[in-house]
Amino acid sequence: MRLPPHLAVRDGRLLIGSHDCVALAERFGTPLYVTDGDRILHNYERYANALKAHYPKVRVLYAAKANSNLSILRMLAIAGAGADVFSSGEIELALKAGMKPQDLLFNGSSKSRRDLALAVERGVRISVDSLDELTQLEEMAASANRMVKIAFRVNPALEVPTHPKIATGLRTSKFGIPHEEVVSAYREAMRCPHLEPAGMHCHIGSQILEMAPFAEAARVMLRLAGELKDIGIHLEFIDLGGGLGIPYRREQDPEVGPEDYASAVMPHFLKGIRELGIEPELWVEPGRFIVADSTLLLTRVNSVKHAHANFANVDAGFNLLVRPVMYDAYHEVIAAGKADQPATQVWTIAGPICESGDILARDRRMPELIAGDLLAILDAGAYGFVMSSQYNARPRCAEVLLRGDEARLVRRAETMEDIISTMVV
Amino acid sequence: MRLPPHLAVRDGRLLIGSHDCVALAERFGTPLYVTDGDRILHNYERYANALKAHYPKVRVLYAAKANSNLSILRMLAIAGAGADVFSSGEIELALKAGMKPQDLLFNGSSKSRRDLALAVERGVRISVDSLDELTQLEEMAASANRMVKIAFRVNPALEVPTHPKIATGLRTSKFGIPHEEVVSAYREAMRCPHLEPAGMHCHIGSQILEMAPFAEAARVMLRLAGELKDIGIHLEFIDLGGGLGIPYRREQDPEVGPEDYASAVMPHFLKGIRELGIEPELWVEPGRFIVADSTLLLTRVNSVKHAHANFANVDAGFNLLVRPVMYDAYHEVIAAGKADQPATQVWTIAGPICESGDILARDRRMPELIAGDLLAILDAGAYGFVMSSQYNARPRCAEVLLRGDEARLVRRAETMEDIISTMVV
Repeated sequence: MRLPPHLAVRDGRLLIGSHDCVALAERFGTPLYVTDGDRILHNYERYANALKAHYPKVRVLYAAKANSNLSILRMLAIAGAGADVFSSGEIELALKAGMKPQDLLFNGSSKSRRDLALAVERGVRISVDSLDELTQLEEMAASANRMVKIAFRVNPALEVPTHPKIATGLRTSKFGIPHEEVVSAYREAMRCPHLEPAGMHCHIGSQILEMAPFAEAARVMLRLAGELKDIGIHLEFIDLGGGLGIPYRREQDPEVGPEDYASAVMPHFLKGIRELGIEPELWVEPGRFIVADSTLLLTRVNSVKHAHANFANVDAGFNLLVRPVMYDAYHEVIAAGKADQPATQVWTIAGPICESGDILARDRRMPELIAGDLLAILDAGAYGFVMSSQYNARPRCAEVLLRGDEARLVRRAETMEDIISTMVV
Repeated sequence: MRLPPHLAVRDGRLLIGSHDCVALAERFGTPLYVTDGDRILHNYERYANALKAHYPKVRVLYAAKANSNLSILRMLAIAGAGADVFSSGEIELALKAGMKPQDLLFNGSSKSRRDLALAVERGVRISVDSLDELTQLEEMAASANRMVKIAFRVNPALEVPTHPKIATGLRTSKFGIPHEEVVSAYREAMRCPHLEPAGMHCHIGSQILEMAPFAEAARVMLRLAGELKDIGIHLEFIDLGGGLGIPYRREQDPEVGPEDYASAVMPHFLKGIRELGIEPELWVEPGRFIVADSTLLLTRVNSVKHAHANFANVDAGFNLLVRPVMYDAYHEVIAAGKADQPATQVWTIAGPICESGDILARDRRMPELIAGDLLAILDAGAYGFVMSSQYNARPRCAEVLLRGDEARLVRRAETMEDIISTMVV
């Protein structure tokens, strides 16, 4: 298997950065999320640089929903990132991590009045998803006597090759203003005295490995920018969203990177703005690409069973990593303590949850496994811990962040106290 | 729509028990899980009585995974229920709720040594899922110098008509000992000096509305009981599991109840034990049937959008109720404050989460909706809150339990403090 450069095998042990996974599991217990912070910064810089090579006025808004651990947000804030935020909770986390309000964009198709009020109060720009929201926002900005900068979320009605649950740019998606109604929405916004239509926003989906849809979205957005210029809108920023995937199936998936993304998108963007004679900031919202491959989920084998298949029953299930059951997602698995042994058997990696669907990986060639063995689930940094639950009354696990030779707990493991604490008996 | 007897419409308002949903939402805020405790007790008694009408030695082990709020467990404990538990966390909750260790069965295909140690220490019976687990358990019982009563989880290899993620009795499921290996597993257990093979267990799946698979499972289990008698096993209990569904699609689904279940299963059970001359306890593990229809998820409309569909964007999403996106599950929806108005429009009920899949209900005929309207998602009591997450940094909502005229908070709403509290910065 092609390993990314921050992973290696030495003396049969899987290393992440300079750290032995077996030693990490012994020190911190399992299950355990382990994140290589240096890899995150590398991914972030690579993404920003790929775009800045084409155009200087680029702002990277990290999609905080992918992994909103405060230590990771803080690292990215120091590196210069803003954030795409999806709730008042994510606004609070991003600000607490040191990001500035003006470096955030508040997205989402269903914002509560409380959410909107916080964004107005803190001076966060808002991507408006409907005319109803526009009306509510004008009212709130008026009563707070604030001027609020907004974008509209555009639904470009594109077919996007990814899992339907995360294809957000389809015509039938819940997100955005139908592209044929965008101009009239901006006209409406121009009539709102406390709102300034300063940007335009789209996001076509997640885990996309083909570049053509990104290029097409850019083309649609720049065409709309022209129509907006005609009605007198001066766009300060155009936000093309995120969605670049990673090669979860490391043997098969194309390894596309932000350089490919930039090569596909930037010609349309640059041609568009040149023709219009405008120089808006280009905003982008990568999430998965920045954090996914930085993280392993370490899980220990509780027992093995040889039935119609060979089951390695582990201590992490869809309570901690829902992607396999939710999206039929594929994650590579490595036996972290016997990574040099021949893969002589075919295994199903099954979690401890009460459902047949709680399978982390199927039909994987691996060495012979026994109770006590440690497995590493790769590429677990995006939509991992953030989607976790306490299903089956299981306390959620700890998270460790690696920087160089240092390994630091950035989320403690929960206990039963945490599960019981909100219950009022 | 046929409403269950604990729900009613009066003056356009949806009532649960004697409580007006609109008033509950105003008092406790939204989103909000509201559970009618009296309905739970009714369902529990009905289930127990349906079986006891055929055979007196019945023990009902409530499947705690369906809804493990302590107040609900406590109510069921007082009513005489034991519990099917799936983790050391669920053992702790059941004991804390007042259930006795001998009224619990510890199930699961991936039990950690810590889980097993707690069960051994507290005297909880264990449904063993593999020979590897058997060996580990004998070691632990020996070192604790305890005698542990066990069952084996049998995989009856049945085709069961339900969603594949929750069809646990398939040959290919991760659960149980293949039925053709069951007798040799019991032979193995008989050689373990600290284990007493006292029971036999199966569970074929969840949300099953056809009775034939239950009858078939009973037939397989009684045949195996005969084979076990031949090798000298005296079964104190036979646990046929749970799985009885509820009519989520109230217009279409057959309304089957525990009486139908008992009529299908008990002839096989009674004929079997009569032929063998044994009188084991019959254990059953209903979960969904006891709690699902007791509970509404109340959610408020944040905004509406008329795009290719009419979207009612609400404040609850798959962070709080994952069933629609995870299992394509159907839940009825009622406009709780305008339940008598004509259903003139077709609506999609969309949550606030960042994914296209975050749709609670599609294409529902409902009255005209506006921001501020309250919707009630029906039948949300099973696999609702227990599967919730803090995805998109959303604090989880409160739960209210109704008993007669009393409405009591049994779980407070989380705040951002709860989300941040485990992070170590």
